[in-house]
Amino acid sequence: MPIRYLGLDGDDTLWQNETRFQLTQTALRDLLRRHVPDADVDVHLAEVEMRNLRLYGYGVKAFTLSMIETAIQLTDRRIPAADLEVILRWGQEMLGAPTELLDGVEAALRDLSGRYQLLLITMGDLFDQESKLARSGLADMFKGVEVLSEKNVDAYRSVLRRRQIDPKEFVMAGNSLRSDIAPVVALGARAVHIPYPLTWHHEQVPEDSMPKEGWHRLESISELGALLDSL
Amino acid sequence: MPIRYLGLDGDDTLWQNETRFQLTQTALRDLLRRHVPDADVDVHLAEVEMRNLRLYGYGVKAFTLSMIETAIQLTDRRIPAADLEVILRWGQEMLGAPTELLDGVEAALRDLSGRYQLLLITMGDLFDQESKLARSGLADMFKGVEVLSEKNVDAYRSVLRRRQIDPKEFVMAGNSLRSDIAPVVALGARAVHIPYPLTWHHEQVPEDSMPKEGWHRLESISELGALLDSL
Repeated sequence: MPIRYLGLDGDDTLWQNETRFQLTQTALRDLLRRHVPDADVDVHLAEVEMRNLRLYGYGVKAFTLSMIETAIQLTDRRIPAADLEVILRWGQEMLGAPTELLDGVEAALRDLSGRYQLLLITMGDLFDQESKLARSGLADMFKGVEVLSEKNVDAYRSVLRRRQIDPKEFVMAGNSLRSDIAPVVALGARAVHIPYPLTWHHEQVPEDSMPKEGWHRLESISELGALLDSL
Repeated sequence: MPIRYLGLDGDDTLWQNETRFQLTQTALRDLLRRHVPDADVDVHLAEVEMRNLRLYGYGVKAFTLSMIETAIQLTDRRIPAADLEVILRWGQEMLGAPTELLDGVEAALRDLSGRYQLLLITMGDLFDQESKLARSGLADMFKGVEVLSEKNVDAYRSVLRRRQIDPKEFVMAGNSLRSDIAPVVALGARAVHIPYPLTWHHEQVPEDSMPKEGWHRLESISELGALLDSL
């Protein structure tokens, strides 16, 4: 069955995301070092984020709230409100920052959108994702947008069903083995992994836990058109 | 054309929402009174919320961040971190609280789901809305769920198009004139207003700005089945 639908992840597939989170986390480490020089900020923040995941889900607002909680707890409630205000501002700056497209994305999508129906399939905060897409200049190239609270097999299955797409005519491309590749292959659709140099700890999966077949790996989205031609 | 699809709003139509926000806001007033007895917390919080709307969108996480910002600003950064931690907890309690169905909802939906295709069409935070639905016990009665970042004419149009629903066979029921009624009537579909005693300031619209026709008002969702029969 020929490929008709191409799903694309947004964060770290089309535009920068994790870099911005890590820059902010570096700033948090620097800020907290002044209060608690010996604290392991990264470990504590990761714990707080995982504990809050079932309440907050993913995204910048969740991250901001977890940074504030981390700052309060690590300083044993001694951190001044002025410093917490700085953390609030970081979150607002992340949300308001321009959408920075990754290399080759615009040209690749211009080509692909003429040959396939493109669906943006992202995870995280609905409002933030829609806002990023609007600011990306790419919105017109997509036939549809799906923001999922979790990218698992059920979520993909329900997207394909609702849009009456056969898994055999669907390919998903993205940077996360856990969210973009494994569940899609499990459904009987194909997937293309386009790694990004940074991966959030929660998204990391051991390579040997991945299915052996049904997916491919590319170095750049610029190669995606040629790969799809060959499938 | 007979009605085949019934859209239902969630917050304050199927389950309690605004009550919980207002209880938390009362607690914030009490907490801040100890630091700044003369401050107008409600007015300042409303300003902060409106300023943040374009970055945060709607929902409990946005509300929590705006409460923290309000608390820091109104106290001129003098509020102790322990009090801000209390505000963080309020947000987490709101997100984790059980979904409290409004009177008559379960019986009404059981009846309606046998006669119409039900769609939950809510606004706000994707993760929180899906989580509330999952905890409501109502999920099986819905054929589909749409969480929108804004309920305007374009958003409804795109939902109906994607699901191949003719506006003439669609009725939307909800508590907000601004979000559930006006945009739906503008599309040529019908709407049913089921008011809730409390309305967030941002959702309030003057009655005389509403279209004269195309919508109805009921006191309770229990009357919805009989109304739909008569249309």
